[in-house]
Amino acid sequence: MKTAKNNIEILRHSTSHVLASAVLEMFPEAKFGVGPAIENGFYYDFDLPRTLIPEDLPLLEEKMKEIIKKDFPFERAEISTEKARKDFEKLGQTYKVELIDDLAKEGNKKVSVYKTGPFVDLCSGPHIESTGKINPKAFALTKISGAYWKGDEKNKQMQRIYGVVFETEKELRQYKIQQEEAAKRDHRKLGKDLDLFCFSDLVGPGLPLFTPKGTIIIDELKKAVESICRKYGFEKVSAPSLAKIELFEISGHAKKFGDELFHVTSEKKHDFVLKPVQCPHHTQIYASKTRSYRDLPIRYMESDKQYRAEKTGEVGGLSRVYAITVEDGHSFCRVDQVKDEVVNMVKIIKNFYSALGLWGNHRVCLSVRDYDHPEKYIGDQKDWDTCEKMLQEISNEMNLSAEKQEGEAALYGPKLDFMFKDATGREIQIPTVQLDFATAKKFKLHYINEKGEKISPVMVHRAILGSYERFLVLLIEHYAGAFPLWLSPVQMTIIPVSEKFSDYAKDVKKKLLERNIRVEINDKAESLGKRISETEKQKIPYILVVGEKEMKDGTVNVRTHGEKQQNVFSVDEFVEKVEKEVNEKK
Amino acid sequence: MKTAKNNIEILRHSTSHVLASAVLEMFPEAKFGVGPAIENGFYYDFDLPRTLIPEDLPLLEEKMKEIIKKDFPFERAEISTEKARKDFEKLGQTYKVELIDDLAKEGNKKVSVYKTGPFVDLCSGPHIESTGKINPKAFALTKISGAYWKGDEKNKQMQRIYGVVFETEKELRQYKIQQEEAAKRDHRKLGKDLDLFCFSDLVGPGLPLFTPKGTIIIDELKKAVESICRKYGFEKVSAPSLAKIELFEISGHAKKFGDELFHVTSEKKHDFVLKPVQCPHHTQIYASKTRSYRDLPIRYMESDKQYRAEKTGEVGGLSRVYAITVEDGHSFCRVDQVKDEVVNMVKIIKNFYSALGLWGNHRVCLSVRDYDHPEKYIGDQKDWDTCEKMLQEISNEMNLSAEKQEGEAALYGPKLDFMFKDATGREIQIPTVQLDFATAKKFKLHYINEKGEKISPVMVHRAILGSYERFLVLLIEHYAGAFPLWLSPVQMTIIPVSEKFSDYAKDVKKKLLERNIRVEINDKAESLGKRISETEKQKIPYILVVGEKEMKDGTVNVRTHGEKQQNVFSVDEFVEKVEKEVNEKK
Repeated sequence: MKTAKNNIEILRHSTSHVLASAVLEMFPEAKFGVGPAIENGFYYDFDLPRTLIPEDLPLLEEKMKEIIKKDFPFERAEISTEKARKDFEKLGQTYKVELIDDLAKEGNKKVSVYKTGPFVDLCSGPHIESTGKINPKAFALTKISGAYWKGDEKNKQMQRIYGVVFETEKELRQYKIQQEEAAKRDHRKLGKDLDLFCFSDLVGPGLPLFTPKGTIIIDELKKAVESICRKYGFEKVSAPSLAKIELFEISGHAKKFGDELFHVTSEKKHDFVLKPVQCPHHTQIYASKTRSYRDLPIRYMESDKQYRAEKTGEVGGLSRVYAITVEDGHSFCRVDQVKDEVVNMVKIIKNFYSALGLWGNHRVCLSVRDYDHPEKYIGDQKDWDTCEKMLQEISNEMNLSAEKQEGEAALYGPKLDFMFKDATGREIQIPTVQLDFATAKKFKLHYINEKGEKISPVMVHRAILGSYERFLVLLIEHYAGAFPLWLSPVQMTIIPVSEKFSDYAKDVKKKLLERNIRVEINDKAESLGKRISETEKQKIPYILVVGEKEMKDGTVNVRTHGEKQQNVFSVDEFVEKVEKEVNEKK
Repeated sequence: MKTAKNNIEILRHSTSHVLASAVLEMFPEAKFGVGPAIENGFYYDFDLPRTLIPEDLPLLEEKMKEIIKKDFPFERAEISTEKARKDFEKLGQTYKVELIDDLAKEGNKKVSVYKTGPFVDLCSGPHIESTGKINPKAFALTKISGAYWKGDEKNKQMQRIYGVVFETEKELRQYKIQQEEAAKRDHRKLGKDLDLFCFSDLVGPGLPLFTPKGTIIIDELKKAVESICRKYGFEKVSAPSLAKIELFEISGHAKKFGDELFHVTSEKKHDFVLKPVQCPHHTQIYASKTRSYRDLPIRYMESDKQYRAEKTGEVGGLSRVYAITVEDGHSFCRVDQVKDEVVNMVKIIKNFYSALGLWGNHRVCLSVRDYDHPEKYIGDQKDWDTCEKMLQEISNEMNLSAEKQEGEAALYGPKLDFMFKDATGREIQIPTVQLDFATAKKFKLHYINEKGEKISPVMVHRAILGSYERFLVLLIEHYAGAFPLWLSPVQMTIIPVSEKFSDYAKDVKKKLLERNIRVEINDKAESLGKRISETEKQKIPYILVVGEKEMKDGTVNVRTHGEKQQNVFSVDEFVEKVEKEVNEKK
């Protein structure tokens, strides 16, 4: 079992022994698996005579509190593997016996066991002094799930109980609040509540269908990223989803993705694969013409689906799907152009994430070679030296404060990775700029230099938002459904005070629609108050109430989501305000 | 052999005998297959001692002219199958013997043979009186190709010679001019010349890759069709390319497409199909929520790839590909809403094709049931009556002059088909509006009516431009590469008179780019005249020449493609003119 590294991990792992002890009281026949410390707490795997139900958890918590109260010491003993084997065999602990055999096979003559009250566990420790050191108000059992013994699905499925452990009651309370908040922000729940995407049993899990509202958000993101990239010379291309496997054998992706590749066949003996990445297709567009040094850089971008045969049991929500819509871009350039290309890509990333209010909440890694093993990489050492130095210069000049990470470079070149934090505080890597000396050579791409010679271009790969599916997860959870105006599927709802003002509401709607503003009317046969509160719940950025006064003056009474104050604008003024906000991506 | 039906067909078929006679002179060992009349001419299949070369065709034409000059009569004789068999066996004409055996098996006791000079053929006729009736200046041999005996690839491959035959020399000349024009407009040639799309051996045939320029055209078409449809309440959705086959078993498409379905599998035992159509996916988005009668019509649109496992040998250019990007739309509505829906769809079609200058050059078909066999269709006879009557009313009210075609309705409902003519005069059907009473029922879709009952909606399918790939073929050939301004990948080229005006050219370019105008500069080290003529060849809509005077006045000297006159505009005036033309899709 993994050794706990610091005090809090020791506390958490020790609590797993207390749980095991409580389980033993409840089920004397229980057989024990393993119980390591994990982030925020621990788990323990059990083989039990019946399936646990959620109601068991508070009972077990009570028993654990009693054990804590009894303040049992954690008593360590070192015994021979032979004795340990006999002792645990006598207890009927077959899983522990298997672990002891594994340890013996590794050459261990002795093993350590820990006793806590009546419970004895095979464990390398360390542990806290006694169960009384656990704060009985600072732990909780959180979840029951299934888990295969040793993580192997050929083995028996055991029952796993998860718990969280902190030092103080306050920390536990904060954790619970954060979890509730995260559940409220869970993209699967919000995606359904906000009608952004859906699944169908007939289509299959892992294959989301985007509704009109979800499609608007994805389209707005596409427009935004394409518009920024176009300013930096990227041109859209469009490649098919299929290709002969040879394409990916040359690029190396067939080997890399292995059983994650989808194969496409027909009764007519077709034999294709669905593309797992876009780069190889883009090399073929480059290769379709003779290129001169004057034509470079040539920059392609494409937002298209890439396919991965994920494990059936692992797909879920938008986080893991069979087809991810990736916003991918490649620049084919000369060595003397690489620096400008990278600088521009970093500018694009900064631009895009600033507009979303995410820039600043990030760190940058500069992934370079493992200098002890240069033979692990493709390309000239001289090119690597030049490019690593250049990336460092760029980091300095652009104040990226990139942390150098040796050995983290890609096989084909060094890279800059940008890490952001999601709503639950987890770090995720999305944008990346990667230099690639290898791919162009594999596909025999070239350009003609000033002297008429054929030279391989450098490829620079860049991702801005990664995949739309996972980016949507990030945004849904980040904004908790209250999208900024430019991304909102419905940007405003007009609510006429009564039926009398329906026509005026329609006039206003028409004017707004003409300016491509996404607007709806709520004139249901319900009270004004109810219609306003319903619309507020939908987190629509603006509610425009129109009645006698507004109709007379040609105005709208505007409530901004999340703000108390109401403001009156003429329709034209309001349109201008909205267009400005949309353009500025506020 | 198929009997020729009219005089021109008789003439054309008779000329095939003259060719066969000429081939016999050239190759006494020749064995003969069949030689029917086809559109504009004929072909004849031969088994020859050597492969023909193009240089053989003028030699054969000369020999044919001699045979025509000799004015041999076509002498008919009716003989017993036994005698015919013996005669042709003696001549070594094994293919003819096989045909005679086939005729005998069908119960024929006698067959007819035709003699023209030294050449005797097994043929049912009829023929012209004598070879002299053929105008020696009104025929031509056009092509050599391979063809399997009886069209079966298990049989021996023969050599086919094609010819065209007209009554007058003038007709032949016109035909040749038209062919040359069509070759110039061939989308494969133009697609390469204009750098719109390419193919790669590593990706595979039937899988086009769209370059930046081709992608611009497709994107502009998408924007145009989506913008019109959005005005009529269509909302974009986005469905995955994959689905379980069950989805298409329920819709009936699995059976309909059969071996044209692509199957998607993985080493992890996934089992999907690539969607051959979008409708079933769209039904699942409809089904994701409870719908009320007040929510209808619900209109979805999507431009996405649909996959068909075409025969390997049949894919080519953009006309037949494995993945077609289809612009598809569906309205789910109540029976009382169907008429408005159809009217709006026809308006969309009229709008879109008018903008392209194609409206007017079309005819409309109203495809209704085969009234003698109402059992062949799905749905209530009452619904069919209502809807067929309604489509007729719409045709009358909108002056569509739809021709009624009995028996041409789809299995699931009547439809309106719009037929246009392409550059070579061929008629092609693209837009369609189809009523569908069946699909919603198959997927158990419903809405809740005023009384709280579950009712099946009607689906109305509509296609505006069909697939982008085939529409692009139509447009490339229609405009012969000279696209209208709004579709042109490059809308204008700025040509500075000399290097001295490069900076001014860049200033103008910047201003145009800010207004999203697609502009390039041609400042190559070549003469002004050469640069202008090169740009003209590329069929760029506008050439802006800038020199001393233009720089001083802040103007551009504009040459419009295909016009002689030059006009001077201030940059702002010109931008305004261009934006107006783009908006009006001129």
